[in-house]
Amino acid sequence: ELLELLEEVHYADVAEIIDDLNLEEATYIIKLLDSEKTSDILTELNEDVREKILENLSAKEIAEEIDELDTDDAADIISELPDERRQEVISELEDREHAKEIVELLRYDENSAGGLMAKELVWVNENWNVMTCVREMRKQAEEVTRVHSIYVVDDDDILKGRLSLKDLLTTSTRTPIKEIYIPKVDYVNVHDKAEDVAKVMSKYDLEAIPVVDEMQRLVGRITIDDIVDVIREEAEKDYQLAAGITKDVEADDSIWQLTRARLPWLFLGLVGGIGAAAIMEGFEEMISKYAILFFFTPLIAAMAGNVGVQSSAIIVQGLANDDIRGSINNRLWKEMLLAFLNGLVLAIILFFVVWIWKENPIEALAISASLIVVIVVAGIIGTFIPLFLNKRGIDPAIATGPFITTSNDIFGILIYFLIAKLIIGI
Amino acid sequence: ELLELLEEVHYADVAEIIDDLNLEEATYIIKLLDSEKTSDILTELNEDVREKILENLSAKEIAEEIDELDTDDAADIISELPDERRQEVISELEDREHAKEIVELLRYDENSAGGLMAKELVWVNENWNVMTCVREMRKQAEEVTRVHSIYVVDDDDILKGRLSLKDLLTTSTRTPIKEIYIPKVDYVNVHDKAEDVAKVMSKYDLEAIPVVDEMQRLVGRITIDDIVDVIREEAEKDYQLAAGITKDVEADDSIWQLTRARLPWLFLGLVGGIGAAAIMEGFEEMISKYAILFFFTPLIAAMAGNVGVQSSAIIVQGLANDDIRGSINNRLWKEMLLAFLNGLVLAIILFFVVWIWKENPIEALAISASLIVVIVVAGIIGTFIPLFLNKRGIDPAIATGPFITTSNDIFGILIYFLIAKLIIGI
Ligand SMILES: [Mg+2]
Ligand SMILES: [Mg+2]
Ligand SMILES: [Mg+2]
Ligand SMILES: [Mg+2]
Ligand SMILES: [Mg+2]
Ligand SMILES: [Mg+2]
Ligand SMILES: [Mg+2]
Ligand SMILES: [Mg+2]
Ligand SMILES: [Mg+2]
Ligand SMILES: [Mg+2]
Ligand SMILES: [Mg+2]
Ligand SMILES: [Mg+2]
Ligand SMILES: [Mg+2]
Repeated sequence: ELLELLEEVHYADVAEIIDDLNLEEATYIIKLLDSEKTSDILTELNEDVREKILENLSAKEIAEEIDELDTDDAADIISELPDERRQEVISELEDREHAKEIVELLRYDENSAGGLMAKELVWVNENWNVMTCVREMRKQAEEVTRVHSIYVVDDDDILKGRLSLKDLLTTSTRTPIKEIYIPKVDYVNVHDKAEDVAKVMSKYDLEAIPVVDEMQRLVGRITIDDIVDVIREEAEKDYQLAAGITKDVEADDSIWQLTRARLPWLFLGLVGGIGAAAIMEGFEEMISKYAILFFFTPLIAAMAGNVGVQSSAIIVQGLANDDIRGSINNRLWKEMLLAFLNGLVLAIILFFVVWIWKENPIEALAISASLIVVIVVAGIIGTFIPLFLNKRGIDPAIATGPFITTSNDIFGILIYFLIAKLIIGI
Repeated sequence: ELLELLEEVHYADVAEIIDDLNLEEATYIIKLLDSEKTSDILTELNEDVREKILENLSAKEIAEEIDELDTDDAADIISELPDERRQEVISELEDREHAKEIVELLRYDENSAGGLMAKELVWVNENWNVMTCVREMRKQAEEVTRVHSIYVVDDDDILKGRLSLKDLLTTSTRTPIKEIYIPKVDYVNVHDKAEDVAKVMSKYDLEAIPVVDEMQRLVGRITIDDIVDVIREEAEKDYQLAAGITKDVEADDSIWQLTRARLPWLFLGLVGGIGAAAIMEGFEEMISKYAILFFFTPLIAAMAGNVGVQSSAIIVQGLANDDIRGSINNRLWKEMLLAFLNGLVLAIILFFVVWIWKENPIEALAISASLIVVIVVAGIIGTFIPLFLNKRGIDPAIATGPFITTSNDIFGILIYFLIAKLIIGI
């Protein structure tokens, strides 16, 4: 009866249940249920759970699952297998056409349009007439879950346009496709980055987009459900980077995985902190007379970090949305002005607090004036680093978070003591 | 010729161009082009640009644009208008059926299923036969851009299931719908949160989902393109919150907008920094003998902040993905263990660095032992605060970032000096 119960439940829900079971139970369920269902379940599992379950299956059993899947999901799962297993599974695939298509997809980078596309799509030749077209389409549509659009190609498979189902059904059967297709169609190149495909599809509200190769030949189709996953994963990755977590981890991962994801940035913070300590030691002679300067170092470090993270986050997001127009210089001037305004407001408050507290306007001035400079420099660093990384082709998202915080802590404290010393006049 | 050129370009691209123009040029283009196109352009504009352009249009002109839009986009635009304008525009709408539907949609919270749904959908009554069905569907489909699914309702408009187009076309015209519809259909409630709708649609890979009211009556339909926007906006908002930016701002917004978004968290940081200074003053008597303790306060503050942000980010993300299973206690124990392990590794490194540097093992021990405690406490605070906020119904995403950083700075420094004092034995 477990079997009947699970047959009723959506595969995505079964996958969530299996994610929480132990390996034996999980393997038992996968072996018990029909491949038609388990293949879909497999695609929805957590990557590490899937990996372990597949280790428990024979190449033949895996091939049976793969046979049921669309080419994109099939290629994703096969690409996760160890090399030798991969060969074995591919040779066990029953449908050789399907196998060929999967092998083709394995060539592409997983973060490219080619890595997202499936070979399942409906296409017609511009030289066919409506009748041939409908007949051929019927055949193709059998293996395509949702048709979305019918793509039109020429004799060399070059994408020419798309066809509306309505036009097809309302035109006489002898009409050549050439006369009725719509020559305007959005498409992406097979090597385009996944993120750029996501931008195009969400900008134009598309549910599917055809993919062409370097010769403009139609080679696949990307559907919006896979793009939704790309958008979610990209957002999670950027969020984790900003929080100083390097690997893609989840709350339920093992302590070991979480440590590996978290320790690197903490180590960077440790190095930064030791650097800050060394800088402060350089100003040790001031400590007996101006202890208050030392009391405010956490404030300076915090403000430098916060301003840096704020400005870098805005730049990182702007870059992701292609929202950054104009030159880097303009950007930096704007950020400097903004940081100066924020700094001025905060410095005035701080000035009066310290003045009233310590009854020493010179110390209050030294601390608050250097706060302004620290904030401006922090803003500049926060703006410059992501722009620089982006120019170099490095993902600017790694800049926000501990990287900026740490460098700003060090620069902030150095600048703070230098300027304070200058103002106090020692 | 400008007109012809713009007619050729996709409305989403025209919107991007207009976002960068001045108000006169923008209004000129909107008045110049046909409402069929400009209505779509309006929906894609930045909110503040749209607001200003609409101020330049008469109620009648706005109504003409609204007449062209699907009900969901129409309601979104009308809801942004000032109250009096809203009434005026609604009374100027030509299609009274359309107007009624829009007014109905205005009732719902913009972050709910009702705020996302459109009234445009294709439905049939279970008591009709196939022939009636096809006739009625043709009428309805005229105003629906993409059909996706045909929903089946009973005489009381209660959602019963859906119909596959294929079954409809391959069944005799006399067959009652009752006999051929699929009784299983995913749906959401009109008051469900937008984020939950996004979860359902992305989990089950849906391109559209019907919306029912409290009596299970079919009241609307949500399409995936609008959900893609929800996912992107939600991700941007969470990212900004984690970076200490409160309002929804972009790199190209005015300095005034950016200041308002950034200053509040900076002010919080200022208060935290003053608190930290006050705590350090309390340990002033140690400064002459153990200056090194003061040199390491930026390190302590940085580590407390980083660990807190890391652990809260994992919890915030886990909560967003419904990934947090098990009790709060288990969570805290796990985080404590994890933080302890990380802290131990870092403390050992720090111990040797300080020992070699200062040649004083007691000071080195005091600093590194308190680092462990600080990291463990920071991890607990970072885990507890988002879980607590979530239980209280507050968005846990506000916890990550400056909020955690600031509280951890203060607690971290307090704990650090207390424990160091204990170990050094003064
Ligand atoms: Mg099986
Ligand atoms: Mg792939
Ligand atoms: Mg869109
Ligand atoms: Mg849209
Ligand atoms: Mg797919
Ligand atoms: Mg990114
Ligand atoms: Mg900090
Ligand atoms: Mg117009
Ligand atoms: Mg709405
Ligand atoms: Mg999905
Ligand atoms: Mg999927
Ligand atoms: Mg819509
Ligand atoms: Mg959220």
